[in-house]
Amino acid sequence: MAEFLNQAAEAANGTVMSVWYLIGAALVFFMQCGFAMVETGFTRSKNAGNIIMKNLMDFCIGTVVFIVLGFTVMTAEDYVMGIIGVPNLGVFTDWQNFDYSGFFFNIVFCATTATIVSGAMAERTKFSAYCVYSAVISAIVYPIEAGWVWNANGWLAQLGFIDFAGSAVIHMVGGISSIIGAAMLGPRIGKYVKDKKTGKMTVNSIPGHSITLGALGVFILWFAWYGFNAAAASDPADMAKILVTTTLSPAVATVACMLFTWFKDGKPDVSMCLNASLAGLVAITAPCDVVDAAGAIIIGAVAGILVDVVVEFVDKVLHIDDPVGAVAVHGANGMWGAIAGGLFAVDGGLFYGGGFHQLGVQLLGTVTIAAYTFVVMTVVFFLINKTVGLRVSADEEVEGLDITEHGLTSAYGDFVTTTPSFVNAESDETVDVKALAPVDLAAAGYEKTEFTKISIICNEERFGILRDTMNAIGVTGMTVSNVMGCGVQMGKTGQYRGVKMNVNLLPKVQVDIVVSEVDPALVIAAAEKAIYTGHKGDGKIFVSSVNDVFRVRTGESGQAAV
Amino acid sequence: MAEFLNQAAEAANGTVMSVWYLIGAALVFFMQCGFAMVETGFTRSKNAGNIIMKNLMDFCIGTVVFIVLGFTVMTAEDYVMGIIGVPNLGVFTDWQNFDYSGFFFNIVFCATTATIVSGAMAERTKFSAYCVYSAVISAIVYPIEAGWVWNANGWLAQLGFIDFAGSAVIHMVGGISSIIGAAMLGPRIGKYVKDKKTGKMTVNSIPGHSITLGALGVFILWFAWYGFNAAAASDPADMAKILVTTTLSPAVATVACMLFTWFKDGKPDVSMCLNASLAGLVAITAPCDVVDAAGAIIIGAVAGILVDVVVEFVDKVLHIDDPVGAVAVHGANGMWGAIAGGLFAVDGGLFYGGGFHQLGVQLLGTVTIAAYTFVVMTVVFFLINKTVGLRVSADEEVEGLDITEHGLTSAYGDFVTTTPSFVNAESDETVDVKALAPVDLAAAGYEKTEFTKISIICNEERFGILRDTMNAIGVTGMTVSNVMGCGVQMGKTGQYRGVKMNVNLLPKVQVDIVVSEVDPALVIAAAEKAIYTGHKGDGKIFVSSVNDVFRVRTGESGQAAV
Amino acid sequence: MAEFLNQAAEAANGTVMSVWYLIGAALVFFMQCGFAMVETGFTRSKNAGNIIMKNLMDFCIGTVVFIVLGFTVMTAEDYVMGIIGVPNLGVFTDWQNFDYSGFFFNIVFCATTATIVSGAMAERTKFSAYCVYSAVISAIVYPIEAGWVWNANGWLAQLGFIDFAGSAVIHMVGGISSIIGAAMLGPRIGKYVKDKKTGKMTVNSIPGHSITLGALGVFILWFAWYGFNAAAASDPADMAKILVTTTLSPAVATVACMLFTWFKDGKPDVSMCLNASLAGLVAITAPCDVVDAAGAIIIGAVAGILVDVVVEFVDKVLHIDDPVGAVAVHGANGMWGAIAGGLFAVDGGLFYGGGFHQLGVQLLGTVTIAAYTFVVMTVVFFLINKTVGLRVSADEEVEGLDITEHGLTSAYGDFVTTTPSFVNAESDETVDVKALAPVDLAAAGYEKTEFTKISIICNEERFGILRDTMNAIGVTGMTVSNVMGCGVQMGKTGQYRGVKMNVNLLPKVQVDIVVSEVDPALVIAAAEKAIYTGHKGDGKIFVSSVNDVFRVRTGESGQAAV
Repeated sequence: MAEFLNQAAEAANGTVMSVWYLIGAALVFFMQCGFAMVETGFTRSKNAGNIIMKNLMDFCIGTVVFIVLGFTVMTAEDYVMGIIGVPNLGVFTDWQNFDYSGFFFNIVFCATTATIVSGAMAERTKFSAYCVYSAVISAIVYPIEAGWVWNANGWLAQLGFIDFAGSAVIHMVGGISSIIGAAMLGPRIGKYVKDKKTGKMTVNSIPGHSITLGALGVFILWFAWYGFNAAAASDPADMAKILVTTTLSPAVATVACMLFTWFKDGKPDVSMCLNASLAGLVAITAPCDVVDAAGAIIIGAVAGILVDVVVEFVDKVLHIDDPVGAVAVHGANGMWGAIAGGLFAVDGGLFYGGGFHQLGVQLLGTVTIAAYTFVVMTVVFFLINKTVGLRVSADEEVEGLDITEHGLTSAYGDFVTTTPSFVNAESDETVDVKALAPVDLAAAGYEKTEFTKISIICNEERFGILRDTMNAIGVTGMTVSNVMGCGVQMGKTGQYRGVKMNVNLLPKVQVDIVVSEVDPALVIAAAEKAIYTGHKGDGKIFVSSVNDVFRVRTGESGQAAV
Repeated sequence: MAEFLNQAAEAANGTVMSVWYLIGAALVFFMQCGFAMVETGFTRSKNAGNIIMKNLMDFCIGTVVFIVLGFTVMTAEDYVMGIIGVPNLGVFTDWQNFDYSGFFFNIVFCATTATIVSGAMAERTKFSAYCVYSAVISAIVYPIEAGWVWNANGWLAQLGFIDFAGSAVIHMVGGISSIIGAAMLGPRIGKYVKDKKTGKMTVNSIPGHSITLGALGVFILWFAWYGFNAAAASDPADMAKILVTTTLSPAVATVACMLFTWFKDGKPDVSMCLNASLAGLVAITAPCDVVDAAGAIIIGAVAGILVDVVVEFVDKVLHIDDPVGAVAVHGANGMWGAIAGGLFAVDGGLFYGGGFHQLGVQLLGTVTIAAYTFVVMTVVFFLINKTVGLRVSADEEVEGLDITEHGLTSAYGDFVTTTPSFVNAESDETVDVKALAPVDLAAAGYEKTEFTKISIICNEERFGILRDTMNAIGVTGMTVSNVMGCGVQMGKTGQYRGVKMNVNLLPKVQVDIVVSEVDPALVIAAAEKAIYTGHKGDGKIFVSSVNDVFRVRTGESGQAAV
Repeated sequence: MAEFLNQAAEAANGTVMSVWYLIGAALVFFMQCGFAMVETGFTRSKNAGNIIMKNLMDFCIGTVVFIVLGFTVMTAEDYVMGIIGVPNLGVFTDWQNFDYSGFFFNIVFCATTATIVSGAMAERTKFSAYCVYSAVISAIVYPIEAGWVWNANGWLAQLGFIDFAGSAVIHMVGGISSIIGAAMLGPRIGKYVKDKKTGKMTVNSIPGHSITLGALGVFILWFAWYGFNAAAASDPADMAKILVTTTLSPAVATVACMLFTWFKDGKPDVSMCLNASLAGLVAITAPCDVVDAAGAIIIGAVAGILVDVVVEFVDKVLHIDDPVGAVAVHGANGMWGAIAGGLFAVDGGLFYGGGFHQLGVQLLGTVTIAAYTFVVMTVVFFLINKTVGLRVSADEEVEGLDITEHGLTSAYGDFVTTTPSFVNAESDETVDVKALAPVDLAAAGYEKTEFTKISIICNEERFGILRDTMNAIGVTGMTVSNVMGCGVQMGKTGQYRGVKMNVNLLPKVQVDIVVSEVDPALVIAAAEKAIYTGHKGDGKIFVSSVNDVFRVRTGESGQAAV
């Protein structure tokens, strides 16, 4: 009778966990929302629509190619030599017996791999190239290596490789693809500026347009990660343990990163701590069901510092431009999580007296998957670059991908979307101010007055050099504002929901400078040089008189106040 | 013994699925969040608080009236002639036996129907009128037609009408109510502009203020839709199949829409693809449990193109202003989903060899529900319009509903919330420039200088006509910026969390124009004509001198540079 | 045999509900996201990164201290005198038998208590002080009182105190901590302005920077609250009843608040209604499983009005500055919910014929927990204030905590983040205009013209006094815009993702005034007085000539038009 109750309980457990498996997978879908918010928030507003679109399409394109090809390449029972499944179209020909549950679970995991890369390649990738990349990784790249680990016949599965929810299979693969993609694309314009004389490289930061959106994304990801890690739990007790390790690791990682950046930079860094939460989640993903609380805590502590170190290494040493930190979060910590499985597994981990066997398996699996990804993705991006082309033109990048790739005037219709980021950026050009000849104002019928106001209307991306040039000739004060301007230039055509819009007024920067001792004719000559590109819409300069100037703090007036 | 295990397993399955039923219903509640974000993101910032409020209140008012009346009208066992339930107040009188589970499930579905309409009627509907509409649809309109299909005694249920999760019952009803409401309201000011001479209608686009928020809403809706469609699944296998069809249809719809807009407009349209995801979800809602993967794919492909075609048809041909595309997404695709059930059901669908019977039932149900909704909602909106009034005044609409309906100065406190949308809009008025008499500047003690700067401070909504008038008299360049201005006008009183605020400074547009050959006296006369309305706060014009002008690209200076 | 099936069914129910318990707890984690969005949305953009960081860290720090200390203080079987558990480190020493499920459930509830306070103390609290507070409340303050109620051996549990999901244990404790913290900090600069002559206190509103984000947070909280209240349900029927009461109360509260503010202020208040939804959720939290629908409706109706009354009482009478309404939402309604359990419990409630016993227990528990919290948290905040210091400096507060506490230039990189809030705020200083001596313009070589334009560049926080001073000397019109300015001042250093940024251009306000009859020399003297602080970056004043002025509405020109 007890035996009987056991059988009934086991059957009930099976039913319960198979419903939770599907709920968990639905939560994994919700990670697409989290990724979209993180990536959009950490980049500039002029590319927001493009990033949304990429995140939406990698799930949608991925679903289409995964059902046609990827799913059976990964999960087929007919699995050749432990390496690759033989594709079949059972979903269409034998739909009554199709494994709907397994398909739903696997497509949402596959889409996670694909979407990691869009952040690293943000703000400069051609949309068409991204669609091709997205199809290839979901159709064939991911299904092959995922099958090694998660197909019962896969060679790594046979070896006992620990990667419960995919630190290596998903995150490390996404992270490695990210660094290859970002390196091959090159940095965003203005990110790394080389001084032509000294050869010294200045690293600029390009702040994201909404840390709030980024944080929203991180919270959504953390919440959804409970599905990601625990969906495949075998029973409620197993599920509970996974939820706890999946809480401890990111919590400790975030605290560790806060302390680390506080100590290192003097202030606790917000965006890095958000990254650290994700890093802790990535690292615990592989060993979430085989470690205890102490293991989860140590894994998290390492992740929280590792993410900061790798972000800075990639940025400041490798000079690879990864706007959202995908390489550090997913690449480095995915690798760390897979290795950690060999160190902290309570059953077989090195630090738990299990010797080197499991660690060896973990290293073998990690290195193999990394090498495979590196080679295949290099080839994929190389071929895309040679055919479709990976990168948009410099003009398109400066204008933003929303208008150039999607005809979307702005993702923020009636918001002003401009300024501080460009205003404080370093410039990679300089004007040789010694070679400047003042313009001939007298010939223009201009009589010098004591104070002259020069109003310069120019493009945003020329502001940095204009500011530096003005400093070089002795101008110390200026007032900068965002305006919309039009001249004889024609503007752009946008579209919104099928309706065309003429965009005659384009965003400009107005710089007002009042000079007294500095020769206005020199200011004008220097400004013309600084903002000239030869394209329509370079801007205009207006000269007028000011009668007097007062500096408030000192109470000075006249020349002393300028 | 095996029989016994079967009974235990069946009982366990019942318990599991009844918990999932409730979790699924909680996810359906979360759709309120998705709708609020989509509708807010796709409209202008000056109405954001109002849209939030409408989305919040339709759930809250709906809950109140649904428990008092709607629930039993829909679900009562005492169901008269298959058409309507006899209301009772069992929830209060016999609460021990009340069907809490059924109530929770049905209220969240009911609220979805109500909330669809708020997007279509956004930016111009009186808040009080919306509250009335919301109470009526939840109390009586929805419960009647929903009972036909989902009450076991309903006449459509008896006929075997397929509408598993409500393509027709919910989405089509919401979509049809949307088109009636939007048509009766009329378009937003500036949406359709008729040239008085040629009679030609120009369709302006009014971009939403945050595509990011809109996308957030779409991702939340998609995630929550897994609850919407699968909550009533009978067992884990059924649930899995529904999750897969509910993934395939929107994924394919989105890809189809991307390709369609890419081909048609030259660029893949972001906001339309977001609509397409929803369209694919709506279309699969009715037949999600009766189609196979191939069916789901075809249904999605049609939905992705249908949504784009209907959005443009409603906008460009019918000239009905539906800011969020509710008619296309919910109306057209709700109808398509219900009909698709008769075509693709593996058991009885026309394309699966089931003949015309099921299709006939589907058409009958769809047409009847559509006709019922059309008639009843026309009466409802007509009566609301005759009593409360549907639409706010033109002044209120221009100022925005946040301040006028809720005393909310702005939903974005310390953000600047202005510009690009109005800046590029077409205007529906023209100034007859030939009839203009230049102002008498000499009388005003003004001596003409070579270059004159005219600074015009005006209201945002007059900018379009000002720009066109300036072009008509030969002014080619201008600089436009957002300012806050005050004059003798008194401002508005806002309130925030119970505290009153005086809003003395109101948003204005400053337009700076420098002319040389064009007579400044004519510019002033034309500007006065263009921005005059006779209301307080029409603006001011300042005239001053500029000493010289330089055009950067050409190097020209003086008159040639203007 | 039937007995046997019953046993199997009971076992199955246990498995199902233990999985739901964990899913529900994961939803409670998601409330962190909701709180972060509500608190960020209801405060100013210059502090957005800081608020995100506090919300993130209170969960992360809380997790660390809770696993080390708080969890066993609260839940240990070895519970001393019904008051406190004896801490042990079983999670590390006996991890095989550790109650992972209970830990996960309890940490997410604990973190909710901690995070409530961050909203009330927003925009002026030192980040380090907040970290200390957060550790203390999670380690010891919350675990003690929560153990009284939720440890089976707790003295309130033994008495039968009703607090199913924590109206008192969590929300009231959070709310009382909020009012102590907010009172000890003092109000934000500019919130309460005392007229020096009359002694009359003006209450200014400081609108949040995104009602949309706030609403997103409320929707997320409501959704997640279904997990918060129902996670510990005993079976599907119990769960369903809880979901219904948890729907009715907030829905009715929101409607009640709408009607109440509509009636009281003439317009339905958006942000107050969002608060009311939360208030209804808080109030139903204690008695959600013991009341019927009618009880839930009445509890909600009271909550919706109570929240509004308490918000205004705290603000207008107590003058305690609680930017998000935490005291009213969580404090007052947490208390109301706990007491309501004694009134409306269908089994033992006063209004259900149960007499005064249960109500007495509820009052005893509520008062004891409140008193405990009041005393302990007063001590905690007092000690933090004496050691770390609770409040940032006035300069830091004005600049915003993002840059001063985290080196984050702005949470909204390339958005303009400025204006309307400061533009309409009251000022707490006045300039004695009668004592002003006009500046000597003649000495500065200035010849008076008919119209003079004075352009003032100043800091945002001086705008209020500048505007009032200008009014006092007869200036009636001005144009205000946001600019970025730099002078000889040096700027700030920001950091973003490990990279330093020089912020040379800082946000300023430009005020343009054109005068004719009013003496420009007096305007300049008054402006200098109004915007002077003696710090670098006080600003500049430029004087120039304008040739003529036109007022559009009246058609006046010249002096009459100014």
